[in-house]
Amino acid sequence: MNEFEQLNRKMKEIADIHAAVSLMSWDQEVMMPQGGARMRARQISTLHGLAHHKLIHELGPLLESAQSVDSPSDFERLNLKEISRGMKRWTRIPNDHVMEMSRATSEALQAWVQARKESDFSLFEPHLQKIVELKLRETEYLGFEENPYDALIDEYEPGMKASTLEAIFTPFKERLGTLLEAVRQAPQVDDSFLDQPIPAESQLAFGKEVVARLGYAMEHGRQDLSAHPFSIGFHPEDVRITTMVRENDLREMLYSSIHEAGHAMYEQGLNLDHYGLPAGEYCSLSIHESQSRLWENNVGRGAAFIGHFFSQMQALYPDNLAGRSADDLFRAVNRVEPGLIRISADELTYHFHVILRFEIENALINREVKVSELPDLWNAKVKSYLGLDVPDNARGVLQDIHWSHGSIGYFPTYSLGSFYAAQLMHFARQHHPDLDAQFLSGDFSALKSWLNAQVHGRGRLYNSEELCTMVTGEPLNVNYFIDYAWEKFGRVYGIARA
Amino acid sequence: MNEFEQLNRKMKEIADIHAAVSLMSWDQEVMMPQGGARMRARQISTLHGLAHHKLIHELGPLLESAQSVDSPSDFERLNLKEISRGMKRWTRIPNDHVMEMSRATSEALQAWVQARKESDFSLFEPHLQKIVELKLRETEYLGFEENPYDALIDEYEPGMKASTLEAIFTPFKERLGTLLEAVRQAPQVDDSFLDQPIPAESQLAFGKEVVARLGYAMEHGRQDLSAHPFSIGFHPEDVRITTMVRENDLREMLYSSIHEAGHAMYEQGLNLDHYGLPAGEYCSLSIHESQSRLWENNVGRGAAFIGHFFSQMQALYPDNLAGRSADDLFRAVNRVEPGLIRISADELTYHFHVILRFEIENALINREVKVSELPDLWNAKVKSYLGLDVPDNARGVLQDIHWSHGSIGYFPTYSLGSFYAAQLMHFARQHHPDLDAQFLSGDFSALKSWLNAQVHGRGRLYNSEELCTMVTGEPLNVNYFIDYAWEKFGRVYGIARA
Repeated sequence: MNEFEQLNRKMKEIADIHAAVSLMSWDQEVMMPQGGARMRARQISTLHGLAHHKLIHELGPLLESAQSVDSPSDFERLNLKEISRGMKRWTRIPNDHVMEMSRATSEALQAWVQARKESDFSLFEPHLQKIVELKLRETEYLGFEENPYDALIDEYEPGMKASTLEAIFTPFKERLGTLLEAVRQAPQVDDSFLDQPIPAESQLAFGKEVVARLGYAMEHGRQDLSAHPFSIGFHPEDVRITTMVRENDLREMLYSSIHEAGHAMYEQGLNLDHYGLPAGEYCSLSIHESQSRLWENNVGRGAAFIGHFFSQMQALYPDNLAGRSADDLFRAVNRVEPGLIRISADELTYHFHVILRFEIENALINREVKVSELPDLWNAKVKSYLGLDVPDNARGVLQDIHWSHGSIGYFPTYSLGSFYAAQLMHFARQHHPDLDAQFLSGDFSALKSWLNAQVHGRGRLYNSEELCTMVTGEPLNVNYFIDYAWEKFGRVYGIARA
Repeated sequence: MNEFEQLNRKMKEIADIHAAVSLMSWDQEVMMPQGGARMRARQISTLHGLAHHKLIHELGPLLESAQSVDSPSDFERLNLKEISRGMKRWTRIPNDHVMEMSRATSEALQAWVQARKESDFSLFEPHLQKIVELKLRETEYLGFEENPYDALIDEYEPGMKASTLEAIFTPFKERLGTLLEAVRQAPQVDDSFLDQPIPAESQLAFGKEVVARLGYAMEHGRQDLSAHPFSIGFHPEDVRITTMVRENDLREMLYSSIHEAGHAMYEQGLNLDHYGLPAGEYCSLSIHESQSRLWENNVGRGAAFIGHFFSQMQALYPDNLAGRSADDLFRAVNRVEPGLIRISADELTYHFHVILRFEIENALINREVKVSELPDLWNAKVKSYLGLDVPDNARGVLQDIHWSHGSIGYFPTYSLGSFYAAQLMHFARQHHPDLDAQFLSGDFSALKSWLNAQVHGRGRLYNSEELCTMVTGEPLNVNYFIDYAWEKFGRVYGIARA
């Protein structure tokens, strides 16, 4: 066994431990009896610690040996580069800091739950203050060139910088605003007919049929209910999704199922031969999100998808869809309306939610704003971008769980995901010009195979930008999203591009 | 932190890893998509290896340090004694042997499934031959005084010997035979009215209500369906059970649920303060089995239990139980009839199934019989003990999974469990003379509390015999079972003790 193979074996062992932790997390959300929480937290923490210990003390020396080998293959070189990048993050942050962050986020999470319940920011403020301080210390451990925020973004989106995001978001805000203004002035879309109770079982049966049809392999997954939909994989042959049902709105179950199935199809498409290595892992959070959004929005909210499933949906809505057309339904599921809550936002106004969070995080980490000033800043941005007054902090600055987890720098990957989705979809259509005809007949296999080959199978050997360039010939280009949005919402609202 | 505390901390860490393995096993039986099997096996094997490595290389030195401390407390001394006993087993068997056994049983299991399906012993024979050879080698590693079989029994039942079992079983066979002969000559019990289809959902709802009423804490457990009922705990605050439903026979679901809930109440009753230490573990397989059988047979097949739940069961059987009495039902669930299959056997003839397996294993391990001769030996014993002809090996020597797992020496714990159950129940009734009145009113809490205090909370600091003596004033005494059996089946069959 050569040096690289020894390293590979150790990485598989660590992946096995992480898989056990993932199963424990899935079980905790979906199956575990309430009274099991305390000891489960202990057991997860032990396995996390074990994996971390192996990363530092057992993988570290193996990595050094593997790196000292002369003339590695391209495959070995790319994997070593990525493992080495991860190792820097793991070793630069001292263990004491990790423990302190773990305690702080555990307390912050409880405080956030209470604060949101009571809509009282002051309950969360000292915890967020503490987390921001710890994250600032983390940026010092990690190092950065331009902006401390870059060190945090890098955890989720390797190589991405705040200045790049600003360069993307600033013109994008303008262009999205133009489209939204045209939408606002057009006759509004009626989606009131979708407000009809449908039994949870019928909804779930339909949702399962849809995701299976899209290509989510049920023999390598399962779907359950949970408070917040998520997907999680233990290896490419067991990737599970959850959904939630709102009895009066089928869209909740349907689009959360498709979204999570998009994530899950990515992980089912990872190369099992490279299990444990970067070559067998997902590329980045933005590329992961591109897969969920592509299936949810570009496919699932597309006219061809609606056309195919329309008769089944008519059967689900025996009253309200009887006299309606597939086009009515297509327009209804694409209704645009600014709202206060990010996770309920439509495909367009969603990006203002992300951008305002990015701007606030950037200001926070650069000490341009104090934690105590966040509610006012938040509300001002919501007014400016969405034209809405925030009635309470629960529907404002307290709505997201991310900061209580210590996740700062995560939000931008959501918008990047949509942009990558549009760009990938454009090239998928170039390779398969008849995709819409296929979708209309219920065949989604060509798209899935193309994504398997172009995105999923390539793993983490390239960052998002490199991967995007390999697949589409250029790095991220927001024009693809803008074009897609004008075309789709032009059709929905009967407006022509300005 | 003193030496014992350091040892304790390491044992908790190892318990956490074992808990992850247990969750992976539960998930595999109950939730996992079929396609996940291959990688799950890999991940379980990694975590097993990790725990084993820690036992030998990290726990070993800590145990030596803790043992060298002067004047340990009684609590420390008892725990150290038991850890040390385990350590001998773990260290005496070389790792290569463990790996070879693992491969052999993995292949044997597949062969057994096929052999049973085709009722063809020759498909299983070479695998069983291999397993017997490996087990014989294991007895040499482990050492023994009288009988190599003792070294194997000791894994499941610390301190038990084949000669002791023989001394128990030989007179027991006679005495059980006398009772069975009286039963055979009495008018037979009618249970045909229990053959009525009941929807699975109604059955499961009833089963859950029953086990909750008996004292299985649902906030620290859950019940699911699986091919073979089992119970499994990840720690005392999360102990799960499974059951199966036979639509035409409520007894299958009901008594498998109660049996598994009995196991689970034991594990829920372990002392969480001693998590990871012998003081926080179950005593032995026979004591574990005593808990499942006590609840299943001594309580669940008792007249008072039936009396309490009779009206609910009447509602489940609107047709067939309408004109029946609680006594009819009590007699029906205690019907005795020799059969070919151990797991379907009644409470009395069951023990002949166990004893014939014990005798065959003892002969095998002492090379008094060849593997190729097992079918004939099996069939002869079934004829002799149960008066039945075995029509095929699937319903004979191939019916149990145990040998394909390499579990030799396990079966006797089933009968010991029944004997301990009768003995424990006798003393529970002495402490609480009105138990039957309590059961009749649906109150099972006094019995559960007594078992919690007398058995569950004592952990593994004493072996079965020591524990039994502490609770009942004497070691295992089969008279309690014989008395219980004559009293109960005397009532069921209207016979007086000979």
